[in-house]
Amino acid sequence: MTHQTASVDQRIAALRQQMKQQQIDAYLIPSSDPHQSEYVAEHWKAREWLSGFSGSAGTVVVTASHAGLWTDSRYFLQAETQLAESEVVLHKQKIPHAPEHINWIAEQLPSGSKLGLDGRLFSVKQLRRLAKAFQEKSIDIDSSQDLLDQVWDNRPRLPKFPIFEHELQYAGLSRNGKLAQLRGKMTEHDCGYHLISTLDDIAWLFNLRGKDVDCNPVFIAYALIGEKIAYLFLDSDKLDEDLQASLRADGVLVKQYNEIESFLQRLDEKVLIDRSSINVQLFNCLQQAVSGPNICSDLKAVKSTSEIEHIRQAMRKDGVALTRLFRWLEQELDKRTVSEFEVSEKLIDYRSQQEGYHGESFPAIVGYKGNGAIVHYRPMPDTSAQIHKEGILLLDSGGQYLDGTTDITRTIALSEPTEEQKRNFTLVLKGYISLDTLRFPQGTMGIQMDVLARQHLWQQGLNYGHGTGHGVGFFLNVHESPQGFAPSLGARGTTVFQPGMLTSNEPGFYKTDEYGIRIENLVVCQEYMKTAYGIFLSFEAVTLFPIDRSLIATDLLTPQEKQWLNAYHKEVFDKLSPLLTEEEKDWMADKCQAI
Amino acid sequence: MTHQTASVDQRIAALRQQMKQQQIDAYLIPSSDPHQSEYVAEHWKAREWLSGFSGSAGTVVVTASHAGLWTDSRYFLQAETQLAESEVVLHKQKIPHAPEHINWIAEQLPSGSKLGLDGRLFSVKQLRRLAKAFQEKSIDIDSSQDLLDQVWDNRPRLPKFPIFEHELQYAGLSRNGKLAQLRGKMTEHDCGYHLISTLDDIAWLFNLRGKDVDCNPVFIAYALIGEKIAYLFLDSDKLDEDLQASLRADGVLVKQYNEIESFLQRLDEKVLIDRSSINVQLFNCLQQAVSGPNICSDLKAVKSTSEIEHIRQAMRKDGVALTRLFRWLEQELDKRTVSEFEVSEKLIDYRSQQEGYHGESFPAIVGYKGNGAIVHYRPMPDTSAQIHKEGILLLDSGGQYLDGTTDITRTIALSEPTEEQKRNFTLVLKGYISLDTLRFPQGTMGIQMDVLARQHLWQQGLNYGHGTGHGVGFFLNVHESPQGFAPSLGARGTTVFQPGMLTSNEPGFYKTDEYGIRIENLVVCQEYMKTAYGIFLSFEAVTLFPIDRSLIATDLLTPQEKQWLNAYHKEVFDKLSPLLTEEEKDWMADKCQAI
Repeated sequence: MTHQTASVDQRIAALRQQMKQQQIDAYLIPSSDPHQSEYVAEHWKAREWLSGFSGSAGTVVVTASHAGLWTDSRYFLQAETQLAESEVVLHKQKIPHAPEHINWIAEQLPSGSKLGLDGRLFSVKQLRRLAKAFQEKSIDIDSSQDLLDQVWDNRPRLPKFPIFEHELQYAGLSRNGKLAQLRGKMTEHDCGYHLISTLDDIAWLFNLRGKDVDCNPVFIAYALIGEKIAYLFLDSDKLDEDLQASLRADGVLVKQYNEIESFLQRLDEKVLIDRSSINVQLFNCLQQAVSGPNICSDLKAVKSTSEIEHIRQAMRKDGVALTRLFRWLEQELDKRTVSEFEVSEKLIDYRSQQEGYHGESFPAIVGYKGNGAIVHYRPMPDTSAQIHKEGILLLDSGGQYLDGTTDITRTIALSEPTEEQKRNFTLVLKGYISLDTLRFPQGTMGIQMDVLARQHLWQQGLNYGHGTGHGVGFFLNVHESPQGFAPSLGARGTTVFQPGMLTSNEPGFYKTDEYGIRIENLVVCQEYMKTAYGIFLSFEAVTLFPIDRSLIATDLLTPQEKQWLNAYHKEVFDKLSPLLTEEEKDWMADKCQAI
Repeated sequence: MTHQTASVDQRIAALRQQMKQQQIDAYLIPSSDPHQSEYVAEHWKAREWLSGFSGSAGTVVVTASHAGLWTDSRYFLQAETQLAESEVVLHKQKIPHAPEHINWIAEQLPSGSKLGLDGRLFSVKQLRRLAKAFQEKSIDIDSSQDLLDQVWDNRPRLPKFPIFEHELQYAGLSRNGKLAQLRGKMTEHDCGYHLISTLDDIAWLFNLRGKDVDCNPVFIAYALIGEKIAYLFLDSDKLDEDLQASLRADGVLVKQYNEIESFLQRLDEKVLIDRSSINVQLFNCLQQAVSGPNICSDLKAVKSTSEIEHIRQAMRKDGVALTRLFRWLEQELDKRTVSEFEVSEKLIDYRSQQEGYHGESFPAIVGYKGNGAIVHYRPMPDTSAQIHKEGILLLDSGGQYLDGTTDITRTIALSEPTEEQKRNFTLVLKGYISLDTLRFPQGTMGIQMDVLARQHLWQQGLNYGHGTGHGVGFFLNVHESPQGFAPSLGARGTTVFQPGMLTSNEPGFYKTDEYGIRIENLVVCQEYMKTAYGIFLSFEAVTLFPIDRSLIATDLLTPQEKQWLNAYHKEVFDKLSPLLTEEEKDWMADKCQAI
């Protein structure tokens, strides 16, 4: 028995001790933090600490006789390895993110049982859902129990990275301007304050950035916006004196992060909250909560003209970095094999040579052959595959720049592809183009458009198991709410597109153990025309990098599709070539040849 | 002042008298009946009786100082005429069916006011919506007030048309078989009984038909299904002795229609109800209501193989009737003008010559030139336009046959169409074909597919203001819940398609005052293939009638679209020609020529 697994069982035993004391029959540990973040600080990686499972998605449930981890297929192998010698049982989720553990709890616990959880880690909406599921069975929920804190020795402290200003030349609109926008929208709701807990919204609103978590340039904080004063709850050590003064001058009062609860308890005013992001603990502190939207999130989703201009600039830089990476890879593969991990490291190198680079926007997916078919694959230094000069390589990556966040996927053939591979790549490309060239009336939602990216695959009985696109932040989170293209009725699919919204367009196709195909550009929504039948919108691709022509079955493209491809490649060449060396320019000219 | 309008004001005065006595500040009169029917019996046309407005959609609100009618643009002209000399004010709805009167009431009534309505005419869901809208303003709702009955002298009685058996040879599954199916599904819910109030569901479940309302072959009844016994509440005079005996033998107990309320009040069992169809009055009678689906509606939506075979037969007959109609029209127009109304009458003639014909499935829309652009146009004997041998004619009609319900729209050019007309017709046709030829994975909803029918119009900045398709009954309602193609998040768009579902596919385009274009076939959903990526479904068009080639801009069609058109026309000819005379066959052969 290794040290690691021994301690997992001991940790679970210690938790059970606490559960017994508190008369709790089952304890639920999610992967989230109090801010519903996608990436969480070490301090909140309780699920990982307790179970030994380090994947990004998973839920642990502990009862007196059972400890179970629920996660989805992309983590089965990893979970089986990491849980092998502990008592934790892997429960395989059929559908990613589906709360299948809820049914398990409802089935296993007898009526009258008590489920414990830390209310800070669940949104009001999530708890409501749990309560509804357990109502019939009369299972009580005690949401005030942070039992982990009692048993977690040497729990990592909250991060203390300095916060910095996202300069006006990038942000485009001042802190005061954004606060005024938000306050204007607040008047549509019956409230004196608006409470915001989502870290990217807070970073956007105050034109501040940090590095408290991986990949997302945010800092840990809460914000409470009143008519005159805005409160920012955070570790004030992270702010230097200039920044503190600047915030004061803008009517922003800084309070300590852990003061939020007592502050809210004393606040006898109506507070507007978004129930899908505000956590239960904060909600319980409020005397008068008014449910409504997360206004900041809606404002942030619509990029300003200035932000879009910066994004175009970031895209040029990203295109240059990718040019160097792919050219380097071609040259290396003529001489030797290269590991997937090395590609991801080299890409960071090339990106970091670009001005204003701030890090990866997510860990790069470098999927060679069968690894490309694993949708959330991430190459590890010790285990990543060696790339030879044959087969198909999928590369999905992104960078954080002061002037924008990028996210791009390209799939390239390293030798002559098969007819089947070319056909499937072309079907994916046709799907990408169908969505890219669509014009649609104002009021259209992503769920209505998603089919356009899938239709060509569907005709052949093929499909892909992920959404077609997600919102993207501006030097912020690469996955941003609320809009996107999804084939389901969640918030992402049912948000109405507005001019200025930035989203990915990324259809794919995956053949298990053989290869993965994905083509991803970021596209910005814009007004296209006004007719007697309404205002019509369209998308404009802002990502700049060629699509591998050697994977295209030209005879499957319509004349319009060929025209689109040639025009896109011309634009890529025109916009990137001024930034390239002569050798790189030649390489690019070859990749951008018309078909 | 005419007799009619004089009496409208008198009627409103009498209503106000009653309102005063009951201390009601506003009274709300919808167009519905206790069964949430599309077509209602004269007995329930209270809104029409009170206001003088006879359109099918509209809501009246009466306060002490105001009487208003809310209706949408298709009725503005009619309403202005019919309300001209009464005190009733027309409130023009911006969006059809939007409950804009709710806001008006909330704005006009002071806090603490009382709104009266007849709870039988509102579903539980509708009342909940009203209550929510008035909550903030503290407006109370008294849903027990049928004030109209007090003031409506000579109110028409409930209809008394005989009920007849829909023979097993058509229905395909016996009453007992259907009851067993329903009871099987009931076990998935915690209930002893299932209450059904929707007339088409009751007709389907018991294999009975009637003619209590226009166009829908239904009879007025409630049904309450228990584990062993099924109760049918209706006017038993409508059943002959044989039918009564047959029902008894199947464990169906007949009770009088007006016994339902007292029966439910005495029933101390859990009753499953669909809150969007069960009315408030019935709901209030229940001791234990369990919310859930209208099971019958879900079962009925999926047509059996036997039903689909009958539908194919009905389509052949309908195609023959249309052939005769269009051929007759062509011949007449060579000699004289023909009124739109005459066309609709002649069509009834031709349909009624077909076996098993039972009436129109809705009043035919015969829209010549600009009238075709009025989506819900209906020609009237005195006012309908004269059709000349020029311009475009839109004909949307359907028949009720013992072996199926039809609904077909064709648009024909009576002279050489303009290039613009041809382009727009072709864009509509391309939309029809995109949806008709789609293959899609199980689990797909109508809202996801609707865009396929619109995309070609959208590219040109054009659109149409109605859904792309609705469910259709089997010798039942031409508008059937729940599935369809809609660009919005209502039930129609969000229902998952299943093999056996029958729906219309009817994109259109309307140029105000000039012409209307719509192409409508009924299509049945079916399994197409099973691959490693799931089960894929598709649609098969069952409607049989040629699409006017003279309106097609052939150069806008892809080779695949041309192929589709030629194959469809070949099928139409092959299936209809055996039923046609030699002259008709020649006519049809010409219409079905390949392009």
